[in-house]
Amino acid sequence: MLSYEDNEKLVRVGKGTPMGKLFRRFWTPALLSSEVAQRDGAPARVDILGEQLVAFRDSEGRIGLLDAFCPHRRANLFFGRNEECGLRCVYHGWKFNADGACVDLPNVPAGEILKFNMRIQAYPTFERGGIVWAYLGPPELQPKPSAAEVFELPSEQLYIQKMMLHGNWLQHMEGDIDSSHVSFLHSSNRGGNQSGSPLSSLIFADKAPKWIIRATDYGLMLAARRNAGDDATSWHWRINQWLMPYATQIAAPEKELFITNVRVPVNDETSIHYRILARHDRPFDEADRAVIAAGLVFPEMIPGTFQPKANPENDFLIDRELQRTASFTGIKSIPSQDYAVTHRPGGQWIADRSKEKLTKSDMAIVAMRRRLLDALKGMAEGREPPEASRPEAYRVRSIDKVLPRDLDVAAGTKDWTAALA
Amino acid sequence: MLSYEDNEKLVRVGKGTPMGKLFRRFWTPALLSSEVAQRDGAPARVDILGEQLVAFRDSEGRIGLLDAFCPHRRANLFFGRNEECGLRCVYHGWKFNADGACVDLPNVPAGEILKFNMRIQAYPTFERGGIVWAYLGPPELQPKPSAAEVFELPSEQLYIQKMMLHGNWLQHMEGDIDSSHVSFLHSSNRGGNQSGSPLSSLIFADKAPKWIIRATDYGLMLAARRNAGDDATSWHWRINQWLMPYATQIAAPEKELFITNVRVPVNDETSIHYRILARHDRPFDEADRAVIAAGLVFPEMIPGTFQPKANPENDFLIDRELQRTASFTGIKSIPSQDYAVTHRPGGQWIADRSKEKLTKSDMAIVAMRRRLLDALKGMAEGREPPEASRPEAYRVRSIDKVLPRDLDVAAGTKDWTAALA
Amino acid sequence: MLSYEDNEKLVRVGKGTPMGKLFRRFWTPALLSSEVAQRDGAPARVDILGEQLVAFRDSEGRIGLLDAFCPHRRANLFFGRNEECGLRCVYHGWKFNADGACVDLPNVPAGEILKFNMRIQAYPTFERGGIVWAYLGPPELQPKPSAAEVFELPSEQLYIQKMMLHGNWLQHMEGDIDSSHVSFLHSSNRGGNQSGSPLSSLIFADKAPKWIIRATDYGLMLAARRNAGDDATSWHWRINQWLMPYATQIAAPEKELFITNVRVPVNDETSIHYRILARHDRPFDEADRAVIAAGLVFPEMIPGTFQPKANPENDFLIDRELQRTASFTGIKSIPSQDYAVTHRPGGQWIADRSKEKLTKSDMAIVAMRRRLLDALKGMAEGREPPEASRPEAYRVRSIDKVLPRDLDVAAGTKDWTAALA
Repeated sequence: MLSYEDNEKLVRVGKGTPMGKLFRRFWTPALLSSEVAQRDGAPARVDILGEQLVAFRDSEGRIGLLDAFCPHRRANLFFGRNEECGLRCVYHGWKFNADGACVDLPNVPAGEILKFNMRIQAYPTFERGGIVWAYLGPPELQPKPSAAEVFELPSEQLYIQKMMLHGNWLQHMEGDIDSSHVSFLHSSNRGGNQSGSPLSSLIFADKAPKWIIRATDYGLMLAARRNAGDDATSWHWRINQWLMPYATQIAAPEKELFITNVRVPVNDETSIHYRILARHDRPFDEADRAVIAAGLVFPEMIPGTFQPKANPENDFLIDRELQRTASFTGIKSIPSQDYAVTHRPGGQWIADRSKEKLTKSDMAIVAMRRRLLDALKGMAEGREPPEASRPEAYRVRSIDKVLPRDLDVAAGTKDWTAALA
Repeated sequence: MLSYEDNEKLVRVGKGTPMGKLFRRFWTPALLSSEVAQRDGAPARVDILGEQLVAFRDSEGRIGLLDAFCPHRRANLFFGRNEECGLRCVYHGWKFNADGACVDLPNVPAGEILKFNMRIQAYPTFERGGIVWAYLGPPELQPKPSAAEVFELPSEQLYIQKMMLHGNWLQHMEGDIDSSHVSFLHSSNRGGNQSGSPLSSLIFADKAPKWIIRATDYGLMLAARRNAGDDATSWHWRINQWLMPYATQIAAPEKELFITNVRVPVNDETSIHYRILARHDRPFDEADRAVIAAGLVFPEMIPGTFQPKANPENDFLIDRELQRTASFTGIKSIPSQDYAVTHRPGGQWIADRSKEKLTKSDMAIVAMRRRLLDALKGMAEGREPPEASRPEAYRVRSIDKVLPRDLDVAAGTKDWTAALA
Repeated sequence: MLSYEDNEKLVRVGKGTPMGKLFRRFWTPALLSSEVAQRDGAPARVDILGEQLVAFRDSEGRIGLLDAFCPHRRANLFFGRNEECGLRCVYHGWKFNADGACVDLPNVPAGEILKFNMRIQAYPTFERGGIVWAYLGPPELQPKPSAAEVFELPSEQLYIQKMMLHGNWLQHMEGDIDSSHVSFLHSSNRGGNQSGSPLSSLIFADKAPKWIIRATDYGLMLAARRNAGDDATSWHWRINQWLMPYATQIAAPEKELFITNVRVPVNDETSIHYRILARHDRPFDEADRAVIAAGLVFPEMIPGTFQPKANPENDFLIDRELQRTASFTGIKSIPSQDYAVTHRPGGQWIADRSKEKLTKSDMAIVAMRRRLLDALKGMAEGREPPEASRPEAYRVRSIDKVLPRDLDVAAGTKDWTAALA
């Protein structure tokens, strides 16, 4: 459990909040590149970290990410015209370029001297891995982007699904690092593996993993140890990498297919889930595409939106007969299963963690919260979060593997997981 | 009218409120038995008195009524698995039986000693009359259930409709005890009886009844006296029984068909209406079933829900032509007519009774409010409501009958109405 | 920009607020006459200035405008019966006439003496120009209605569209007096006039008009001066008349077709737009009706409602391809174009004007706000707004015309514009 005060610190992400400040020390996924695919095409709404922004791709291909509202009369620039290297407000024709400079004020009589510096808030961006990344923090502290491998892969080796989820970001992310729940939530009606699931069956044979957790330069190495079936000389290890402040690399039984979950707050009650499937070795083939299409690893979406078909409005389309005969939950897709248990803990969009009762099975969650709270404490005392200045530290992998019991996994670090991969 | 303070006392029903405490001294309808018809079947949401609960029928047929949220990480047990005498949370597999005991903690490593007593809030229940009753109060004060006749009838003599209504519970219940409104709201366009109505036509011939009200052991005997047509030696009596704290037995002209209305708060702005038709003498026959199906006594529902088709979103499907030619309201069903005038008095989901102007026609409402306020005062001073410990007192009937003028109805008590029946 | 305090003064319109009081010194459009077309027909909901009212046309054709809630138990009189010169509550039959007098109390026993004066709040009304006007202020201050020409025209010379708009009334009205925005928001994709538009093309040739603003007895004469094309001896003038407190007469290039916009607050976050097209000279002909039907001057409505089809829920049906090829906005209708930029400035239903950056192009808006603030200051110091007692002053016209440069438009007054017309 957390005190009310500590909980509040972690869940609020607006501009002036402690956690909002921490987020603003890192590059953050702002939108998919495909949302602003065309030069001079339609702008896109970007609501992140409690801010309302608008993105556009200019005539030269640069991405602009601006405050959504024209500084003049505050009309919404989403309705704006994207033309000749700038976004023009349709109300009075004021135009801003990707850097936020006002490059045209056509309704102001010639000769009028403005008393103010006419700019609009613009945030730096770059594109990598099909995502437009943005930095919303103080310019003088702008870091290099993390060197996480997944975002450097070519598009033929990446599949990204963007989903808008109701509920506070933190409760969704907690599911990502919680290896214990996998044995239940994602199991079949008999407690085994779901049909067609890419997860290791060993996860379902031993439902009480033991945690080995190491603080690392990039966040946490979260290793869950289970029995390796009949093999008494080995352990099954499932090692997730939690990358400060919002990403988790999920261990996969086949080293070639990796899931990464990134959680970006829209505001305190809504968050975006970027769910990424990646191969490190080669382009996706037919079999990989079948995994994507099957509906188990990625949920069906409402066409033309970022809304999953299964959502709180329809009880995640729970099928009680399926729950009786084939699935522990009766909910079709793994991310929907997660969404069902994390969207509204205790009946609230923002979890109240003072009412939890935690056990040793929750050690990863406790460690993650502690790490974030320590970072907030550091910032309050004037120390910048060191992870932001260690982009290379993020070059790690997750793993799901059976290993000899005498291997010292507790000593595992970035190098160790790299060596395994 | 009521002062703002007295009004607030009566309308708020959450756990710590005065009226919430009074409700929690009585057995309360929690849901229909049919909502959890199957052993090991799907659990059902139960939102009453501001609490969020979940009900299930276990492998042995017992009803469990639990806090809706797993004490561990607060996931919603509505998504849970109902299996082998317990409800299992799908997040980490924790399992609770109908008594609230935690009977399985499968993700906790063997040998871990929990620092806390692992239970979930469970409330006692019993089934009677097609309803699951629950007691949400202090265990040491648990009373016997009321002996009201209607709930002891076999199912062939009972018809129950459950409806979710927007608006505070009290304003809906006030309609139940208000004999005066019947002469208007439920009349035809010309002020007579509606076509096909089971109500006595004498109610529409004399629109200004005189009240005789007696405080009783179970609540109030509310007798409305009207002229008996041309018969100057008799009165028409319509005697409703108000059963503390939420039920009203409605007088019926034919003694064999009785309506009982029960009002259970969901929260302060929503309440459940259990509307019950009963025969005391024999199973329903074709004619009785025709009354049920006709749409006047029971409104049409949206299939698969507890929502009436006529509701505030569609102005109760008011038909102005019908209002001109056949019905005082132009609204089809008697309960919908009630719902239209009680859902939002003064434009608010919770009535502000300081703005009313009452006359002698409202004496029953005044008496009921006074009785409740007295009970709250008693509890504040440490006296338990005596009605809760008098289950047998609830064995009364309502009546609608023409009687000689010299009969002393003012002396009427439980025995009196029982004698008439 | 405005200070937070001044902004609050202008946007709040409830009964006790400064701006609410100012509105209540003038006759206000309450509803269309056609909403209560029939004697003894269905009553109509009227939500204006934060009050909930109900209107009905009685047996003699008089309009009643009453508090929506019966003083007895506060049931909604919208469900009432309109019969024999009064509106009767369906709950207990209480009946009120158009003056608010209670003319029947049928459920009160004969002989009961009421302790209170049984009336309902009723507001005076009159009908003119297809609109029911109401006066919601202190009876002793009731003014004569304004003598604005448009409302005295016969119905064959008038077309009125009533639209419910989300967003505070003031931001919508600001668009009406802002000649500068017309050159952009209502232009084609190339900055010229939209195809089929009745606006003068000169507005699009000179996008930085110079303001000449005169305070007048009725409000403001707002003259925007532009170049008259190649004619160096003339100016193009577009002179709008702003009529205290909520109406604007829009200049039209052909003097025979005039637009008037009236903005009536429903509450602080919603307002009604009465958009009126009028000819002063003769009944509409086929060509005029074609202008109305074309969809550019009046938007398409959802049938049976006052909701425009293009609204905030659907991004005003913006068509990005249309925006690229034919229209500056990609939004089909001129009022929808306005609605898109004014409904939610800065992401809020009530604009926060402390965050604006104004230039000389906004002089009309500044003058209007100042005029209203001065009136509020006067009222706070006990001076009634003089405009309310000058109905004849409202007899002015707007104009859109090319005039010789040496004409002293700056000296223009009511007489001047009248002379031109």
